[in-house]
Amino acid sequence: MKIAIALYDRFTALDAIGPYETLSRIPGAEPVFVGCEKRIFRTDLGALAVQAGASFADIDRADILIVPGGPGSRAMMSDGPFLDWVRKIHATTQWTTSVCTGSTILGAAGLLKGVDATTHWACMDELASTGANPTGERVVVRGKIVTAAGVSAGIDMGLTLVARIAGDEAAKAIQLGIEYDPQPPFDSGSVTKASPDTIGLVAAMLQQENAADAAA
Amino acid sequence: MKIAIALYDRFTALDAIGPYETLSRIPGAEPVFVGCEKRIFRTDLGALAVQAGASFADIDRADILIVPGGPGSRAMMSDGPFLDWVRKIHATTQWTTSVCTGSTILGAAGLLKGVDATTHWACMDELASTGANPTGERVVVRGKIVTAAGVSAGIDMGLTLVARIAGDEAAKAIQLGIEYDPQPPFDSGSVTKASPDTIGLVAAMLQQENAADAAA
Repeated sequence: MKIAIALYDRFTALDAIGPYETLSRIPGAEPVFVGCEKRIFRTDLGALAVQAGASFADIDRADILIVPGGPGSRAMMSDGPFLDWVRKIHATTQWTTSVCTGSTILGAAGLLKGVDATTHWACMDELASTGANPTGERVVVRGKIVTAAGVSAGIDMGLTLVARIAGDEAAKAIQLGIEYDPQPPFDSGSVTKASPDTIGLVAAMLQQENAADAAA
Repeated sequence: MKIAIALYDRFTALDAIGPYETLSRIPGAEPVFVGCEKRIFRTDLGALAVQAGASFADIDRADILIVPGGPGSRAMMSDGPFLDWVRKIHATTQWTTSVCTGSTILGAAGLLKGVDATTHWACMDELASTGANPTGERVVVRGKIVTAAGVSAGIDMGLTLVARIAGDEAAKAIQLGIEYDPQPPFDSGSVTKASPDTIGLVAAMLQQENAADAAA
């Protein structure tokens, strides 16, 4: 089972690693990190440098496509070769997936017209602009397209998909293997639970990032 | 605030990425991935290749040390240069941390004698063999030593430490930023919750891995 994980500059690490750490543990899984070139890609926070194991030219099919999100996703929404590759692989997949703003890339590739999908809570308008129907759910499965909410939601998406592919018992075993018994010290992980102050703080930070990107 | 994340061959990706994705979002954080050499290190699942940004020789202090776990941790427990570097950095830290079997490396370095600590649920005996007092908690803070349970527990550890370092509001904002509102599709993430069949399945898989390691 070939799993292609798309890389680009300034992706968010956990977006890619959540699905990688769960789906790659299905027996027979063959994960590969794929970039426009076989070079190093850095995450949004800069320090993590991931070497692509293959280039777009090397990979022409996959059973599962995973498109992570991150600040770099905005540039990918108008990157012709990236979108061409996403469309090409999607035509071969059993499952086409995204985490966080990875769904805005799927949308820009034309894969989400009229399709229910999700993304990071702060980017619902951007997702809607691609023709998708944004939902507030954490993991959305519609046909073979599976989208997850922000960053950490890729773990829940990965386990959901493991169950579909390999059965509930396999998913439970992988959950226990990675000891995924979450105990966040606060209950502030969604806009339905965080305080208005926290939401305002994070929204302002994200706006600053976007403004810096636009000015760059 | 310098954050040194130790790399070695066959570490588990999420062990490193959970703390990276949370602690590195504190304003002023300077994370760096550090290996014995400035080369590429592969995770246990093989596909993810991470380029170390610095070698042990380059880094002689850190505010936070993060030691991930993974199948490769067993070899590190008797790796003199690795343990020497861990001891050297620990002498300079405000916080010395581990995820999963990373704590067995801290233990092998002599840092956990008589100290409450945790690790992956299947490795408590190995942790005890280093002189630590294993607990069943998900995140254990004792003085400046912070240990987390298996793999995904590094996210909870990271947020716990963000709160200690930068305050509760910062931790809540980072939690919302990474939309950490976990909704696992099953409740099978700990040995207190998983079925005996699931526990047996995972324990057998881990034993097979260990036997293959010992034979290699």
